[in-house]
Amino acid sequence: MTKNSSIATFLDDLASERPTPGGGGAAAVSGAVGAALVSMVANLTIGKKNYEAVWEDLKAVNAEAEALRAKLTAAIEEDVVAFNSVMGAYGLPRATDEEKAKRTAAIQAALKEATLAPLRAVKACFEVIRLAAAAAEKGNLNVISDAGVAVLAANAGLRSAALNVFINAKAIKDRDFAEKQIAEVNALLVEAAETTESVYQTVRTKIGS
Amino acid sequence: MTKNSSIATFLDDLASERPTPGGGGAAAVSGAVGAALVSMVANLTIGKKNYEAVWEDLKAVNAEAEALRAKLTAAIEEDVVAFNSVMGAYGLPRATDEEKAKRTAAIQAALKEATLAPLRAVKACFEVIRLAAAAAEKGNLNVISDAGVAVLAANAGLRSAALNVFINAKAIKDRDFAEKQIAEVNALLVEAAETTESVYQTVRTKIGS
Repeated sequence: MTKNSSIATFLDDLASERPTPGGGGAAAVSGAVGAALVSMVANLTIGKKNYEAVWEDLKAVNAEAEALRAKLTAAIEEDVVAFNSVMGAYGLPRATDEEKAKRTAAIQAALKEATLAPLRAVKACFEVIRLAAAAAEKGNLNVISDAGVAVLAANAGLRSAALNVFINAKAIKDRDFAEKQIAEVNALLVEAAETTESVYQTVRTKIGS
Repeated sequence: MTKNSSIATFLDDLASERPTPGGGGAAAVSGAVGAALVSMVANLTIGKKNYEAVWEDLKAVNAEAEALRAKLTAAIEEDVVAFNSVMGAYGLPRATDEEKAKRTAAIQAALKEATLAPLRAVKACFEVIRLAAAAAEKGNLNVISDAGVAVLAANAGLRSAALNVFINAKAIKDRDFAEKQIAEVNALLVEAAETTESVYQTVRTKIGS
């Protein structure tokens, strides 16, 4: 499964018994969808009459959203690599003490990367939420609901990637490292939820619902 | 853009200035991702030792999830059709009284379908949430986080599709019809939020976070 898979194939792969793509890949797709919709709102605002005052702001928003979309699209495959690396480390030989020590070190290194990879996705989704808030505040009213969809997708991506941080951090022996990543995710979860609900309500108010 | 587009192409299309695919398509994809992940959890539980007691339950869950995935994948294109139909109706000639009456009737008919199409997506996402709850309760603990990602994706899809119901229902002159759909969506939004938070907490408890 790559970013070049069709949507139907991606969904078939998700649904299958194969362990990847799974929740980590879905989280990255969700964040990327959010970033793409922020760009859509920006693209349908820049150059439109009555929105001159925010054209420059939305150009900057769009540039950031495009960079985040590239990052989150790449994260679909990084999740697979991180998962395979952990599985590969668990599969190393453990007949001798030397092998055992090597295997344990490999597992621990792989788990750290399998914690940091979804953490990068969490942070990227958090940035998308921030951009969606700007799009909902300043964007073309005709497509303001797309800013609402963007924030929902990005927050679902953030909360989904957070689960992978928690799972992998749990098995890490370096507790200082693990607890630091967990605390960072917990703080971002709270702030993301607040911003998401605020943006969704803003959008509902603007569409008069 | 179709379900056969690559993920990268779908994201490019979302981000572009073209009005479709937009939030409606993203909502359907989100729901379909949720359904696919429910199937994944079911597929990785059925046939596994220690889960014999729930094999039959999860076979039924999987069958329902597959049907909902097909429905939501089809909804990606139904959203485009509904949007184009509304735009087409607004573009009809209005030089004579007869043309004006015909145009108004066509707009109103198109708006009703553009309300019912996202409402069907809302309902399908609601069913996916129900199935994700069953998957989180009974599924293989090794992939329980995927049930959490499933419920988040489905709820984001539901709340996203809800925005399109609200927008299109607002412009409908038959207020009895419009208010009925809006009330139905509002009730589903409340119940979906409760179930989603409950499932997410269940998953966090099961993964020990």
